[in-house]
Amino acid sequence: MNFEKREITKKSENISQWYNDIVLKAELADYGPAKGTMILRPYGYAIWEAVIDGLDPKFKEDGVENAYFPMFIPSKLLQKEKEHVEGFSPELAIVTIGGGEKLAEPLVIRPTSETIMYEAYSRWIHSYRDLPLKINQWNSVVRWEKRTYLFMRTSEFLWQEGHTAHATEKEADEMARKGLGWYKDFYQENFAIYALVGVKSNAEKFAGAQKTYTVELLMPDGRALQAATSHNLGDNFSKAFDIKFQDEKGESKYVFQTSWGFSWRSLGGLVLVHGDDNGLVLPPKVAPIQVVIIPVSPKEPNGIKDYTTEITIKLKGLKIKVDDSQNTVGWKFNQWELKGVPLRVEVGIREQEKREVTLARRDTGEKITVFLGDLKTKVDEVLESIQQGLLERSEKFVKENTRMAENYDEFKQIMNTTRGFVLAFWCEGAECEKKIKEETKASTRFVPLDAKEEDGKCIYCGKPAKHRWLFAQSY
Amino acid sequence: MNFEKREITKKSENISQWYNDIVLKAELADYGPAKGTMILRPYGYAIWEAVIDGLDPKFKEDGVENAYFPMFIPSKLLQKEKEHVEGFSPELAIVTIGGGEKLAEPLVIRPTSETIMYEAYSRWIHSYRDLPLKINQWNSVVRWEKRTYLFMRTSEFLWQEGHTAHATEKEADEMARKGLGWYKDFYQENFAIYALVGVKSNAEKFAGAQKTYTVELLMPDGRALQAATSHNLGDNFSKAFDIKFQDEKGESKYVFQTSWGFSWRSLGGLVLVHGDDNGLVLPPKVAPIQVVIIPVSPKEPNGIKDYTTEITIKLKGLKIKVDDSQNTVGWKFNQWELKGVPLRVEVGIREQEKREVTLARRDTGEKITVFLGDLKTKVDEVLESIQQGLLERSEKFVKENTRMAENYDEFKQIMNTTRGFVLAFWCEGAECEKKIKEETKASTRFVPLDAKEEDGKCIYCGKPAKHRWLFAQSY
Repeated sequence: MNFEKREITKKSENISQWYNDIVLKAELADYGPAKGTMILRPYGYAIWEAVIDGLDPKFKEDGVENAYFPMFIPSKLLQKEKEHVEGFSPELAIVTIGGGEKLAEPLVIRPTSETIMYEAYSRWIHSYRDLPLKINQWNSVVRWEKRTYLFMRTSEFLWQEGHTAHATEKEADEMARKGLGWYKDFYQENFAIYALVGVKSNAEKFAGAQKTYTVELLMPDGRALQAATSHNLGDNFSKAFDIKFQDEKGESKYVFQTSWGFSWRSLGGLVLVHGDDNGLVLPPKVAPIQVVIIPVSPKEPNGIKDYTTEITIKLKGLKIKVDDSQNTVGWKFNQWELKGVPLRVEVGIREQEKREVTLARRDTGEKITVFLGDLKTKVDEVLESIQQGLLERSEKFVKENTRMAENYDEFKQIMNTTRGFVLAFWCEGAECEKKIKEETKASTRFVPLDAKEEDGKCIYCGKPAKHRWLFAQSY
Repeated sequence: MNFEKREITKKSENISQWYNDIVLKAELADYGPAKGTMILRPYGYAIWEAVIDGLDPKFKEDGVENAYFPMFIPSKLLQKEKEHVEGFSPELAIVTIGGGEKLAEPLVIRPTSETIMYEAYSRWIHSYRDLPLKINQWNSVVRWEKRTYLFMRTSEFLWQEGHTAHATEKEADEMARKGLGWYKDFYQENFAIYALVGVKSNAEKFAGAQKTYTVELLMPDGRALQAATSHNLGDNFSKAFDIKFQDEKGESKYVFQTSWGFSWRSLGGLVLVHGDDNGLVLPPKVAPIQVVIIPVSPKEPNGIKDYTTEITIKLKGLKIKVDDSQNTVGWKFNQWELKGVPLRVEVGIREQEKREVTLARRDTGEKITVFLGDLKTKVDEVLESIQQGLLERSEKFVKENTRMAENYDEFKQIMNTTRGFVLAFWCEGAECEKKIKEETKASTRFVPLDAKEEDGKCIYCGKPAKHRWLFAQSY
């Protein structure tokens, strides 16, 4: 790879070009041959594995079990819940030929698995003893896209989808909120991204849900990213799919359900929030390589080989990589910066003589020199500091870019300049929501969880409004 | 669940009915609503997770990286390698409608990912420094089936597919054999199933491969199960997809490739080999629950609660389940036997008074009483003994059912009675292979790895034959 090829658009100049450049050049992902598709390359997949390693144990601790349901959904199953089918119909991929024959009934490739899972739930659930039923899948789903926007809009994407059934509405709502909490915590603790949570408006909620909880992130260009959702489905699906149980008194009742999902779109957010002009910046907790060790006295490769080995032994337990390739030191520095490795360890003859090591932080560029004896402690400290520092920077950015608008002029002015989140009273009428979106490109993102009632006026129509909603333009 | 429902066909009476019964009743799997599809239920998925946990670290240690490629393959890509497309054409599922529109070019759902991955390999590989390239996917693939045979024949199945590219043919062949070794070891060490390995005939090899290595298991009904395959693809695909690299001298060369896969079919083999009239028998290394603890003095639940807790603490680190449900002790014994839990721990008032515990083995039914102080050591020993015992039993069965046939009469007699593997000279002519299969239902399974040349005569045509091949009827 020559230097020219590695040139990246500046983030401040053209963020979407910069984004495409670094996703491709850091080898996170590539375009698939069919329109709308994406290849998740090994370096990107390793971050996806960090997502699985972060979320899956939380699910299991809570009693959620993994399973796998078929990708093929007979059309008639998908049609059982009215809002659901209406929501998904425009974006379906449909198999009409199988085994060389035209199919009598076309098969839909799952856009999400409510319908195929709940058909089974209706057969598996009989008694209150079968509840709660909590099943998760790590799979891919298909929602048609004509043009790929890497990670953000792809016809097929990896995600997990959890689907639970409960005896009471209250328990289902608690479950939906718990799922939301896992996602928020994951973003903050693992991705080091400050996350806001709340409830979607009717227009923005999941097709078929009673209530959609959402995690929203703010991107550097002031646009919001819907980063994960968790749905209280009420008994909408259990009525459509006839999922009933006998309660302790022997009465037959419908279950209450939830579903919640987290997709590879999250990786798009990770790139956008932390990356800089030199490439990715990965939080240590999810970085496929946490520390890269680079010999900087290339003319004495044997002289420092033993010392490099000593260093790798000291760093055991961390994800390390020694780059002893034939490339120049400058090339290596650029390459591992591009790939967002949190910490670089430089090893040269001088370091060896003094039994020292130079550490360079990816996030701040700061360099420090430490004694070999202190290396592991110091590296652990620095990685922790990077992880915390990234989260703090993210929180600061979100807070600075969340503004109150007391009237529609203020609202429009913000959307025309800085963008970001805007808190504004809204009457919760679909018409105002639509007009605001048409005129400012800003949609309702959510109302904060447990927002207390206030006595306000809708910024659009002036009618009474109980809550300040968060608005933003969005990805 | 009442007792009637739990009745299972006897394995000795009707093995395929027995198989269906226990797969369904032990809740490993269920039928999906679309023909040919299967749901992998949580208990079955937990075994699949044991497959991942067993194989994935071996791949990674060897430098194989995970990734994800799209399920959609444009038809023209699939058609690039002639034998490959011919082999797979009859079993494809094809998407013709996407996003509400008829597609200009239909998309095939991957039956395997050679073509979509190698299109990318041709773009990613430039120099010898990019080699070897080793990528694996844990995904699902689709090969059309009209009728589901749980785990064995399903339109969609979970598997992993590894795909590597190398500078030399020798290195590719070593890789293909290494993959085979991982599978064989996994079957023996984790699934406790004695496995044979060898090379497929031309007629039986993978469509597009130069050489197919296979792992074959023998099922209790004397039929063979092709349990995993590893292919040396030679340069068949690299020529079709133009995957070239510059070697150290600057010359442009085609890469040599391999692919290797292990699917959920393996779980079918696991059920068939070890199960008995009472249900599943799971080897401890892959059992989702290794030890079930059952209070057997139900009238004194509180009396033994503390003692049960003591026991669970002693068994920390194992996968344990305490069944303190309201069901009868008899029901619980049956239930956990059906689910194949390797070891049952019975806890009653008598045990508590003596500070003892009764252990019951699922494989032999043997019961022993141990002191609480020795519990963990003893349980570890017994689990190890079950794991070893199952493998030994499997090995004995395979060896007893692998017979030499010196002529076609002997061959036919074996296939009409005991079945099993038959070792027989074959001229390696396609015509004889076809006739033998038509007349006896037995196909060539493989020739052993590195079989030394002998001086024999084909049992069918009498012409010279260099090797004794293994024949069997197969799943």
